[in-house]
Amino acid sequence: MTSTAPRDTADPLDDLIADVFNRACPSRQTMETVANKWGALALVALTESPYRFNALRRRVDGVSEKMLAQTLHALERDGLVTRDVQATIPPRVEYTLTAPGARIADTLRALLDVLEAEIPAIMTAREDYDRRH
Amino acid sequence: MTSTAPRDTADPLDDLIADVFNRACPSRQTMETVANKWGALALVALTESPYRFNALRRRVDGVSEKMLAQTLHALERDGLVTRDVQATIPPRVEYTLTAPGARIADTLRALLDVLEAEIPAIMTAREDYDRRH
Repeated sequence: MTSTAPRDTADPLDDLIADVFNRACPSRQTMETVANKWGALALVALTESPYRFNALRRRVDGVSEKMLAQTLHALERDGLVTRDVQATIPPRVEYTLTAPGARIADTLRALLDVLEAEIPAIMTAREDYDRRH
Repeated sequence: MTSTAPRDTADPLDDLIADVFNRACPSRQTMETVANKWGALALVALTESPYRFNALRRRVDGVSEKMLAQTLHALERDGLVTRDVQATIPPRVEYTLTAPGARIADTLRALLDVLEAEIPAIMTAREDYDRRH
């Protein structure tokens, strides 16, 4: 973040412009949460519907219980996901995207769509590369 | 990947649909390369212009020489970045996006733009969360 205005405004956050290329910018921490395999897959899965923990774990094939719990905790802390506990017996816990979480998840879905579309080209490139090296 | 057509077509890759939610899909490996902090920042930086290694390392603030070299190697192997060596003395090595790399980088730029725009909301959420926990 870099300061762009005098310091006497009400909310110091209004003075700041996020720059994820700057290692000191707080956006880096969120980037580590959303721009990683498990964070991205969890957010994109949650664009389909709210999920309970175990159903989300089945959807995000291969994630460990510990990694998914850590991921959801970081997403909840950043206000991208809410954890709703319903007072049933046993309690039913459901994860839902917030509005900022949905906006970020939409761009991640576009990323995954492009990635999936490019996979034939990527696999051909990978085979060529491995043949040459 | 899942098979979707009879197996007698010319190129077996044409039969396949990538599904990044499936842990066995080769798209997962590429996802680990592009959907991580350094891969994403390197690809987005390269949408600005080609870069030499050291200039790219300055742009992607905080990346180590080793991590950037590993990242560029994985991107080159997947055909997302080309490494152009010019026969000068000393040789000048420049990294450029390929067409698939540019398509993926565009979606990553959209992700970073949304992330930067959401940072005030994210920081407020993070402070609230930390106060309550």
